[in-house]
Parts: sequence; structure tokens; C-alpha cells
Amino acid sequence: MSDQQIVRPVPISGFPEWLPEVRTVELHWLDRIRATFERYGFCSIETPSVEALEVLQAKGETSQEVYTLHRLQGEPGDDAARLGLHFDLTVPFARYVAQHFNDLVFPFKRYQTQRVWRGERPQEGRFREFTQCDIDVINPDQVPLHFDAELPRIVHEVLTSLGIPPWTININNRKVLQGFYEGLGLPDPLAVIRAVDKLDKIGAEGVRRLLADDLKLDPGQAGAVLDLASVRGSGTGVVDDIAKLGVSSPLLSTGLDELGFVLEELADLPEGTVVADLSIARGLDYYTGTVYEGKFTDWPGYGSITAGGRYADLAGSFIRRELPGVGLSIGLTRIFAKLVAEGLIEPGAKSPSRVLVVVPSDDRRADAVAAAAALRGRGVNTETYHQADKLGKQIRYASRKGIPYVWFPPFEDGRPHEVKDMASGEQTEADLMTWTPAGA
Amino acid sequence: MSDQQIVRPVPISGFPEWLPEVRTVELHWLDRIRATFERYGFCSIETPSVEALEVLQAKGETSQEVYTLHRLQGEPGDDAARLGLHFDLTVPFARYVAQHFNDLVFPFKRYQTQRVWRGERPQEGRFREFTQCDIDVINPDQVPLHFDAELPRIVHEVLTSLGIPPWTININNRKVLQGFYEGLGLPDPLAVIRAVDKLDKIGAEGVRRLLADDLKLDPGQAGAVLDLASVRGSGTGVVDDIAKLGVSSPLLSTGLDELGFVLEELADLPEGTVVADLSIARGLDYYTGTVYEGKFTDWPGYGSITAGGRYADLAGSFIRRELPGVGLSIGLTRIFAKLVAEGLIEPGAKSPSRVLVVVPSDDRRADAVAAAAALRGRGVNTETYHQADKLGKQIRYASRKGIPYVWFPPFEDGRPHEVKDMASGEQTEADLMTWTPAGA
Repeated sequence: MSDQQIVRPVPISGFPEWLPEVRTVELHWLDRIRATFERYGFCSIETPSVEALEVLQAKGETSQEVYTLHRLQGEPGDDAARLGLHFDLTVPFARYVAQHFNDLVFPFKRYQTQRVWRGERPQEGRFREFTQCDIDVINPDQVPLHFDAELPRIVHEVLTSLGIPPWTININNRKVLQGFYEGLGLPDPLAVIRAVDKLDKIGAEGVRRLLADDLKLDPGQAGAVLDLASVRGSGTGVVDDIAKLGVSSPLLSTGLDELGFVLEELADLPEGTVVADLSIARGLDYYTGTVYEGKFTDWPGYGSITAGGRYADLAGSFIRRELPGVGLSIGLTRIFAKLVAEGLIEPGAKSPSRVLVVVPSDDRRADAVAAAAALRGRGVNTETYHQADKLGKQIRYASRKGIPYVWFPPFEDGRPHEVKDMASGEQTEADLMTWTPAGA
Repeated sequence: MSDQQIVRPVPISGFPEWLPEVRTVELHWLDRIRATFERYGFCSIETPSVEALEVLQAKGETSQEVYTLHRLQGEPGDDAARLGLHFDLTVPFARYVAQHFNDLVFPFKRYQTQRVWRGERPQEGRFREFTQCDIDVINPDQVPLHFDAELPRIVHEVLTSLGIPPWTININNRKVLQGFYEGLGLPDPLAVIRAVDKLDKIGAEGVRRLLADDLKLDPGQAGAVLDLASVRGSGTGVVDDIAKLGVSSPLLSTGLDELGFVLEELADLPEGTVVADLSIARGLDYYTGTVYEGKFTDWPGYGSITAGGRYADLAGSFIRRELPGVGLSIGLTRIFAKLVAEGLIEPGAKSPSRVLVVVPSDDRRADAVAAAAALRGRGVNTETYHQADKLGKQIRYASRKGIPYVWFPPFEDGRPHEVKDMASGEQTEADLMTWTPAGA
């Protein structure tokens, strides 16, 4: 035992980390997410964790959250301070597409599951390091509207496969909002959208005051804006509800056609999982059509667990090529950490092994090693107990690690192999060449 | 088209990034690595990308390579500058084990595949961001010697599964070196190890001068040190070769027993893949027994592609509990990037889709969508062409993305579905409910 100074390790706020049995579950989640994205033909890309600062700041937004890198001991000419960790996967994706434009086949459909970093104050649901799973479809000049329905369908399939508590993906269309405000004769529709985007935080009366005081809407206009924001429903009936508000404009008509089409395409999904909600605004000016924001039904204040929308131009900051598209992001860490905190993640095994082979004695360790090798050769995840030891201790190790089978090589020559099913306690003779674990 | 300022994106030196068809291959590599690690019962963990600076500096080494994080606009009380990106996975693993000691089941066998960062000058094989795949076995107080053979066996299996050009995992034992130097009566064996570790860089004569001038060895002693370093061989015969040098000490005997045991246990591996090389020293004082260093046979100067060894105490900086273990790390990015640079990576598909369903016409898009859904429901990765278009264009899209099958829903009512095998060009009738792609 050394007598060196001890640095007592403590968790770093905002940087989650899981025990092996919880990581096991996260890994299965990642597998399912990838499988579903690939089932729909989305390819994987990864980008570096850093981008040049001028890339991260090309749109001038959220840059105060960027972590920049510095060398502990800088050298002259050191360029590290010009690099920042990415704060989302959209900016890196846009940069990637611009940089590799001539090497990509369009429509380009990619998924990207990576860590992102934000230097903000940690609080419930807000992390400094977290994993996002993004899917986007982009194509020069045009991307058909049916992708606006395919993306939430894929995310619905992903969330369903994860078995999480009830959620709703709320859908809106920026053209409906903007067209409605234009129909009302409002001069600055984007400012109204930004005001409505505050509904969650300041409530209807707060927004009404904002509209009246800051944006100088008359009470009738403000009332109509709030009437539109209160429209909500899962069927295409919402289109009629909006029509009944008696406002019209060409952009509103286009928006309603699009919203109706998307809802129609998703009509087969379970009631309540995809809902039109005209209060969803997604503050970013970036979005131009459909917008999405998914939340847990039981924790509406927790923040969005999936979000995205349609944009007219992905990479205008980086390339003179118009690249419209539609994208959705799943906040993996935000979802997973909430379920861990709520005790809703059933911990998985502490070992990927399906079988523990016991070591009967030092003399027979070679038999145990050979049995394990044979099982592995047949694709069964197997470990050998690390040393000859009391049988009870070896079996207890399997139990503590959640290993479902314990294998007994012969303790004497001429005896058969046996295997114990840890769940049932049943122990039976077994053949190394034919035995298979349940569920394999 | 906007007329905003364009930020022309350029690659950032030392931060590799791959096109989708290359990422496809990397992803398959990661799958194989994970499968092999899990086959042997190693569980996955991940740690945050950052550690507290005092954790990273607990051993006082390599800290000049650390990237620290700074907020672009710091606030008073901002603690970001006390965080640094990890430069390996060993320090985070040690911190993790110390922090979660009471929640882990020992022996603890973990694998960890993550990005690490080093703020060094990029050059061939040296990146600022790269992925490592580490496996370690630790246990309080003792870890049996057979793990010293199991770990290189696992890495051998991984490298074999990746189909990379020939490599050698060189093995040595620090006790042999130290015991031999003690037998020679040298007062500071660690200083001699550090000198021998420079063999690659300064050659035998350079080391001889270092031993004579700096460490004051007499010519006989320096000669013996270099004689030992020149011993190399794949069988246990190396143990006899060392004995013939006529030096003895208790520690040397122990070391030779261990080295002989490990070589014996690995004797079934193909000739030349695991070789005892008494010049391998692994400079770090951390290692106390077996050490490993793997290299490409054809590019010996490229640097190690796998490295590790046995240590007496993993986490002495963080916990007063002795945790011996043995670990090996695979330099995934270093290997992969080299093969990309040498043109030895056969690019994979640009899409995970096995099938592209063509859209015969706008009227029949629903049929295409239904066919794709049916195939997906049977687990086949499938995408629909994004719009009705000329058939040739749709087939060319499949060809350009490397999608192996093109599916034709009926162009008229009552006609059968057909599928075209893009490799053979053969087109046949097919049933949505029974057809399966080759290799599925």
C-alpha cells in the first residue's frame, strides 16, 4: 500500500456516468436506436468532437455555451484555443456536408449518435456532456414532404422499442403560424413566433402582455394569436379548427395543407403519440415548415426529449448550395437519466457473459478453460472463474454478476459436463457441442 | 440562395473524420471488437470525456498534453477551467473504480471504447482525437497470472477478426529486466529500463553510450544489458537464451517463470503473432510484470498498435485499496487511419439499406411505402426512393449507394412484385412475405 497523497474522486456535476449494470441497458438502447435508423436506410457518420470556432459561431447563436480547448502549457503557434467542442450535431453535420459535398450521394440520409457539450449550469435534464441521436434527410433544392412524416415515425418506433413511459410528439408548422399572423396583418411574424415560444415559461397572460406591450398588437389580434396557440388535437380535425378561426392567407393555406398531409400520413400511430399543437414554435429562425417537440406525458415540465423540424437551407454558412431538409434529434441522455432518476431503469447484468465456467481445482483448470473456449467458439459469451475456489463462492459470483448459467466441467474423469440454470436452480447434464442458452 | 458570409470548412489537423462508406467499415470493426470483448465476459463502461485536473495530474505525467476546457464567456465561479479532456482511458478507469468501489463485483473485467484527446503536434499515427479500446482485469490484492495470457489472446482474436496486415504482439516482463539488472549489481534498475526504452529511437550504440556516460555502467555491464535486450523469440526457448547469459537473481527467476508461463499458454497462436522481445520496456514505472507492445510487421516504425501490461496498483492515487491488474489497449484510430492511408480499407456501402424500393409513379407511391414497411417488419433494412422518377435514375441511386437489391412493386394491378440482384443483374418475381436477401 503506497502512502502517496490520495485524490478523493467525486462526481462532476453535469457529466453523467453509469455503473456497469446501467451501462448494459444504455448499450441496448443504443443498439435499438441504431437498428431502427438503419432499418430505414440512414447511414452512420461521426464528426470530430471539436470544430473551428468560426464554424461553431457561423450562425452567431448559443456560442456562450461553447467550451473552447486550451493546452495546459501552450506553445507559440498553438492553435488549440481556436477549437471548441460542438454544442449540437447540426452545425457539425452542416460543415461535414459542405466539406464533403462532392463525395456524398443525395438524398443524403444520415444518423449521428455522439456526445455534445454545453457549458451551462447543470440542472434537472440539463447536462454539460450528453449524447444526442440525430437523423436528417437533405437533398439539393428539394426534399419531398413525406419525409416530414417519416422522421417522427422513425422516432416513434425508436421510443416504442425503448419501452419508456408515455410521451407525445407535438407537431406544428411554421408556415401555419407565419401565414396566420400575416392573415392578421401583423408586420413582424417572426417576433410573434418568438413571443408564442415563451408560452411554456410565462403562460398565456404573459404572452398576451408581451404581444400588447412589446409588439403593439391590438386585443383582437393578440386574442387570435392565443386562440391559434390553443389549438391541439391528434387528427386532421385540427385543420378545420384552425379554419374556423376565420383567418386566411396563401402561406396559411400552404401550411395547413402540409400539416394535414403529415397528420394524415401518421394517422395509424397510437392515439396521443403524435399530436398537432399550434403552440409549438421552436424559437430558432432556422425552421421553415414542420416543427417537432416531444415530451414525456407525465413530466411536461421536464423539457423536450426529441425535437427538430424542416429547414430551407442546412449549410448556407458553409457552402453556396441550397440544401433543404428535415431532421429530428433524440435526447438520449436526457431521457435515460430521467428514467434512472425515477428508478424506472431495471438494471441489466453486470457482465455480458451468458455462462460462467467453474474451476473445479487447480489441476482441472485446463478443462474449464477448454470448456469456455468451446462455448465461445459456438458464439456463447463465456467467462471462466478466475481461480479454483469453493463452489459456493464461484456460484455466488455468477449470481452477483447476473450471469444466467453456471457450467460444471467434470470433477472426475469420465463424468459428464453439467449446467445450472441460475433462474430455475435446475442443474442438468449438458453437451458442450450442442447445448445452447435460452434466448440465444 | 442567401448572400451571407461563407465560412469555407477545412479539415482540422489531427482530428480524423471519414466518409460514410469508410465509417461503415469502422462501425463493423467496432462491432467485432465489442463482440470479442463480450465473448470473454468483459463488460462495457464509459466515463465522461473530462476529469478534474487534479485527477488527470494525480500521477504528474503527460499533463502537458491535456486539453483544458474554458467557457467562451466565463462567469464568476465558473469551474470549467478545472476540467480537462482525458488523454487515455486508464486514469478515468482508475478514478471510476475508486469512486464506485463498493458497487463493483470483483474481479472486475471491463472494456472501454472511447475517444481520447492529446494536445500534441499531429504527425503520422499521432492524432489529437482518437479512439482507444481498452480491456483490463482488476481484483483487490491479486489477479492470477493466466490473465497475462488471456488478454493478448483476446487482442489477437480481435486483430484477426479485423483482417489487418500482419502484426506482432511483443511480450516482455519487467521482473526479468529488473531482476537481470539486479543480478548484474546495477544500483538503479529503473534508470536502466528507461535507457533501454530508447533503443527504438537512438539504437544500440546510443543506449550503450547512455549506459556508460549517464549511468556509469562498465563496458561488461552495458554489454550484458544490450545482450539481454537483443533476445527475441516466439517459443519458451527465450527463457533458456536468457539463462545462458549467466546472470541470476531471485527476481529474475520469478520473471522468467512468469514469462515462460505466458508464452506456454499462448503457444497455440500462429507463429510470429506473439513474440518475446526483451527490448520492450514500456517506459512507465506503472508496469510491474508482463508488458506488451504490438506493431505492424511491415511498418515497424509506425508506433505501437496495441500496448499494455501488468500493474501492481491501478488506483493508488484515488483509493487506499491495492488493486493489481493487467490491461491492454488497442489503438483503433491509429490502426484504422493507417489502413485508410495505405488504401487497404475496402470502402463499404454508403447506405445500410439492403433493399431500395422503387416508386413506380406518384399514384403508386403508397404501394412502394407498404412494400418497404413489410420488408422492414421482417427485419430487412429498406429504403424507398424519395420520389417517383425515371427507373434508370432510381436504380442508379441504389448502385451509387451500394444497395444490393432493388425491389419493384407492381407497375400495374395484378402483376407480381419483382426484385433485382444488383451484383448479378438478375431480376426475379418475389414474395414480400418470404423473400430474404442473401447473407441475412
